[in-house]
Amino acid sequence: MIGRLNHVAIAVKDIAKASATYRDTLGATVSAATPQPDHGVTVVFVELPNTKIEFLEPLGADSPIAKFLEKNPDGGIHHVCYEVDDIIVARDKLKAEGARVLGSGEPKIGAHGKPVLFLHPKDFFGTLVELEQA
Amino acid sequence: MIGRLNHVAIAVKDIAKASATYRDTLGATVSAATPQPDHGVTVVFVELPNTKIEFLEPLGADSPIAKFLEKNPDGGIHHVCYEVDDIIVARDKLKAEGARVLGSGEPKIGAHGKPVLFLHPKDFFGTLVELEQA
Repeated sequence: MIGRLNHVAIAVKDIAKASATYRDTLGATVSAATPQPDHGVTVVFVELPNTKIEFLEPLGADSPIAKFLEKNPDGGIHHVCYEVDDIIVARDKLKAEGARVLGSGEPKIGAHGKPVLFLHPKDFFGTLVELEQA
Repeated sequence: MIGRLNHVAIAVKDIAKASATYRDTLGATVSAATPQPDHGVTVVFVELPNTKIEFLEPLGADSPIAKFLEKNPDGGIHHVCYEVDDIIVARDKLKAEGARVLGSGEPKIGAHGKPVLFLHPKDFFGTLVELEQA
């Protein structure tokens, strides 16, 4: 069911610093920072040959990553995102097998403009899993 | 400098359960579990179309992931591994720019039979980074 690893998301307090380190020290191709007020984050993509790293910096008062950064003040790996062909089929299969879908259970439009869902970390070995329709 | 994302490593307490969930619930291709006594872990690879997820379960009394699982009893994302063309060139560039290489600073042969190094998470936004010679 799951396909490509779309991205690994890393939450950071200072996205400009993270971008500079990945660009200058690790020599990667790094996008401009894009504020996404609807998602409460500013986003930078690090383009690797086979996938992406996504830096997330809190934006606004109710950022969904604010608590994570309180617990992990240095930053840290926040989630992995797997692509699926049909997010509704994937969701219904997962729910039937007892996995918990976060929020309303209905896909939202994610940072890439495609439908996404998040799965409960307790059902996936402490790992927050995002599913994105390919 | 960094190339492909070779893998994302997820530390788990029960690698059989994690393998079954990724195989049966997420529909992924999962390898057999391979004990690697030299590394203090048992390893399973989840083969995605563009990269791998690596499950790590502690093996033996001095497993390098034992403390991580004490702090993260559900499990969690442990590190990311980037490929580099020449691990000595990469190491020397990183050290020159102030990044800390863990351990002796000399590459060891990793789980895939290739030279690897680990970089200090404090220098990379709370993320443990493995470099592997491609």
